[in-house]
Amino acid sequence: MFPKNAWYVACTPDEIEGKPLGRQICGEKMVFYRGPGGKVAALEDFCPHRGAPLSLGFVRDEQLVCGYHGLEMGCDGKTISMPLQRVRGFPCIKSFPVIERYGFIWVWPGEKEKADPAKLHHLAWAESPDWAYGGGLYHIKCDYRLMVDNLMDLTHETYVHSTSIGQKEIDEAPVITKTEGDEVVTSRFMENIIAPPFWKQALRFNGLPEDEPVDRWQICHFLPPSHVLIEVGVAVAGKGGYNADPQYKASSIVVDFITPETETSHWYFWGMARNFKPQDPELTAAIREGQGKIFGEDREMLEKQQENILKYPDRKLLMLNIDAGGVQSRRVIDRYLAEEREARSLVG
Amino acid sequence: MFPKNAWYVACTPDEIEGKPLGRQICGEKMVFYRGPGGKVAALEDFCPHRGAPLSLGFVRDEQLVCGYHGLEMGCDGKTISMPLQRVRGFPCIKSFPVIERYGFIWVWPGEKEKADPAKLHHLAWAESPDWAYGGGLYHIKCDYRLMVDNLMDLTHETYVHSTSIGQKEIDEAPVITKTEGDEVVTSRFMENIIAPPFWKQALRFNGLPEDEPVDRWQICHFLPPSHVLIEVGVAVAGKGGYNADPQYKASSIVVDFITPETETSHWYFWGMARNFKPQDPELTAAIREGQGKIFGEDREMLEKQQENILKYPDRKLLMLNIDAGGVQSRRVIDRYLAEEREARSLVG
Amino acid sequence: MFPKNAWYVACTPDEIEGKPLGRQICGEKMVFYRGPGGKVAALEDFCPHRGAPLSLGFVRDEQLVCGYHGLEMGCDGKTISMPLQRVRGFPCIKSFPVIERYGFIWVWPGEKEKADPAKLHHLAWAESPDWAYGGGLYHIKCDYRLMVDNLMDLTHETYVHSTSIGQKEIDEAPVITKTEGDEVVTSRFMENIIAPPFWKQALRFNGLPEDEPVDRWQICHFLPPSHVLIEVGVAVAGKGGYNADPQYKASSIVVDFITPETETSHWYFWGMARNFKPQDPELTAAIREGQGKIFGEDREMLEKQQENILKYPDRKLLMLNIDAGGVQSRRVIDRYLAEEREARSLVG
Repeated sequence: MFPKNAWYVACTPDEIEGKPLGRQICGEKMVFYRGPGGKVAALEDFCPHRGAPLSLGFVRDEQLVCGYHGLEMGCDGKTISMPLQRVRGFPCIKSFPVIERYGFIWVWPGEKEKADPAKLHHLAWAESPDWAYGGGLYHIKCDYRLMVDNLMDLTHETYVHSTSIGQKEIDEAPVITKTEGDEVVTSRFMENIIAPPFWKQALRFNGLPEDEPVDRWQICHFLPPSHVLIEVGVAVAGKGGYNADPQYKASSIVVDFITPETETSHWYFWGMARNFKPQDPELTAAIREGQGKIFGEDREMLEKQQENILKYPDRKLLMLNIDAGGVQSRRVIDRYLAEEREARSLVG
Repeated sequence: MFPKNAWYVACTPDEIEGKPLGRQICGEKMVFYRGPGGKVAALEDFCPHRGAPLSLGFVRDEQLVCGYHGLEMGCDGKTISMPLQRVRGFPCIKSFPVIERYGFIWVWPGEKEKADPAKLHHLAWAESPDWAYGGGLYHIKCDYRLMVDNLMDLTHETYVHSTSIGQKEIDEAPVITKTEGDEVVTSRFMENIIAPPFWKQALRFNGLPEDEPVDRWQICHFLPPSHVLIEVGVAVAGKGGYNADPQYKASSIVVDFITPETETSHWYFWGMARNFKPQDPELTAAIREGQGKIFGEDREMLEKQQENILKYPDRKLLMLNIDAGGVQSRRVIDRYLAEEREARSLVG
Repeated sequence: MFPKNAWYVACTPDEIEGKPLGRQICGEKMVFYRGPGGKVAALEDFCPHRGAPLSLGFVRDEQLVCGYHGLEMGCDGKTISMPLQRVRGFPCIKSFPVIERYGFIWVWPGEKEKADPAKLHHLAWAESPDWAYGGGLYHIKCDYRLMVDNLMDLTHETYVHSTSIGQKEIDEAPVITKTEGDEVVTSRFMENIIAPPFWKQALRFNGLPEDEPVDRWQICHFLPPSHVLIEVGVAVAGKGGYNADPQYKASSIVVDFITPETETSHWYFWGMARNFKPQDPELTAAIREGQGKIFGEDREMLEKQQENILKYPDRKLLMLNIDAGGVQSRRVIDRYLAEEREARSLVG
């Protein structure tokens, strides 16, 4: 159950460097590669000749070539050529709209004619020289919505990430959740607390005292179909918190692009955008490594939670106030799903 | 097909030391831990909040805490607390009756009100300082009843364990099987034979001649739901065999607690209780290692036998006199199953 | 969908040296071993006593003994003996006709009474001292017919085996395919080309110039049920090609015995028979190693092609002229399948 008429992150540019990439997204087996003019293309990963995956082939003169018998496929899904063959009557394969932007390849798995580039959210940090980004990719064996729940309720940090970003004050601070149009925002502010290890390190990087009280914030933004961007940070206590002058704070955006693979698995593109020391690649690497460990801690929990839910499919889960972020996000997803269903039934 | 109203071995105390243990027993996912006063508790391994396995959590102040969002669960399956939440309306999860006795944790996966501690078999050897016990745990991918069959027909030792405890005289000696109430006993006595390697070693440990003829016995006791205890031993030939004076014999009890996990897999708690040199931990370790190897030899046979039976589900297997132990044990199991079915239909 | 009334390669003699071998062929679990007089026997791999696989047993005095409880099984599927048991009433298990010939064990998985040794194809190279053979076995997770397609359309060499036997002239040369009775032959001749690396090496072994133009040929023979024998070679250009005098050429036969295991997996016995330097075991080993690498390159392609076909079962694949070899071979297979269906319906 995932909306198909939406932009999802498919991969990063390094994954299609020099060779095509096969990846299943929203149930569709796709191949990604750089076609004519270096433009990224996405096609069904299925050669119309004998069904071989095109992703096992290669790119020659900016065209995708099947690695089995040399069929040359156009980025529109029409066969261009094949040794000694007339290809005009060959059946087409699906092509998928693609955008390369913000350091990611985005794909629209649904109806091509509805793919509007304007529907891709604007990510200011990804275009500004004041920001740096580092991240990675995990394959997680659970429904992508369990990951949305996870990220829209950060009280789990106290337990799952107790040695890095968790602290009991997260549980104790009230949370406010609201939906504005398609966006869900859930916020938590903690005042006059001691920073947990991850943030002590960030304070140090910013030349701020790490052992003095801080104000800390977490503002999670859900954007359809399944992106979660979390403004996080700490400021020297009493300097205005989230609104403090930059010299008093260390802050960043946790970036989570969650792309369904099947009903019970997804691709998790995680990362962090920061607006301090953006020109320091060693810092980027250090943060990336730390964050990679932290996000790895969620994996076992989510995959075993999925197993439990599959074993007891009839059980209703609780929806507490701390779950409001996930609950409201799922409502937005459900609305998208309903719209797609309705559109299909009108066509049918 | 396993009786649920019965005491099964769930785990050993070392497995719940300092952290909860998740284990599926008779189809139920359970979590085991030491709760208030150090008393072992068993609950459904399913947090009522979001379905996370409670076994991924931890024990704090003798209470189980969910590792995802900090829900504190009582050993009765009622939520005790959760940060910033009123938990009174939270749904309960199942709790399972548990007994810690004889060095094992026993669980009753069925109806709580029928769980009578008196139904736990008495194991005299486990409470006597004259006896020592060593054992281990294997996960075996076959119906637990194939393991019962295996242990109630020791002619397999000649073939599966030919280098340790097997010898052709086992096949050649007649076997007597009888059911007394719920207990099935199958016995075999071999007179004036040469001991196989395992028993030569035991004779040596007891200061007895290892190369002279012995009388050997095997008395297998099946006790419901699926425990098999085997009195085994050798005595210097002509001294009375099973009834010989202790100074002439080396004997022990092979202990097998067989706990279904699913219809086609089980937990196999194997071990040996001996009443010679009980204070010698090195001897315990040596026997444990030898026995671990021997019982590992059964695993491939049983798992492939299970595969064969699943591939040819309609084939009838033979029931020979040597199989009488398994056949009669299955009859006891079937009687338990019928009683449970009947009780359910009366309720329904 | 595989013909069962046919001779398939089951294994090679070294695989049953000293111990029985369990292998599933055409959906039947079989055990192979050397029985009375060293004659190979094939039986169902299922002990009539308790369903244990007989392949976990051993051979004693030229008879198969079950490794679980010592049942001694005859090569006709009738139990010979069992310790302390009368075995006359034991149910029989299936036995399968077997022939040992040409360095292989051949089995007939279908109706015993139709198993005619005369239906085994004659392989002259396997009986002649002028030829040497080396080969290996791969387990491939795809329908055996995808392997037949692969071998009956060698244009894939240009892509899958580009560094060894592939070259663009294969794609460019016309291919001629014809069916004669049960045999399908697809041929390709390339004149005045430069040999690819594998053939340069072969020319060198034959004392011929490796950098001068050659004529190259590939003549693929499909023989039911699923054998593919490919005459391949190169000759110094202009000396008559395929018909050139032996002193001017290097040639061999690629040998492919393809034995279905399940509907979507098979055993692939690959090898090469050559009629140059037959007494050179180092050369045999070198060729075997090279060929093993080459045939390993097909595996990923075929297994992922199978996954794609299973995911999109309704898609029609193309049948181009280059596919004629596979298409016509499948027609022969389909005819065999139809005959078996018809024979069954007459019986029914």
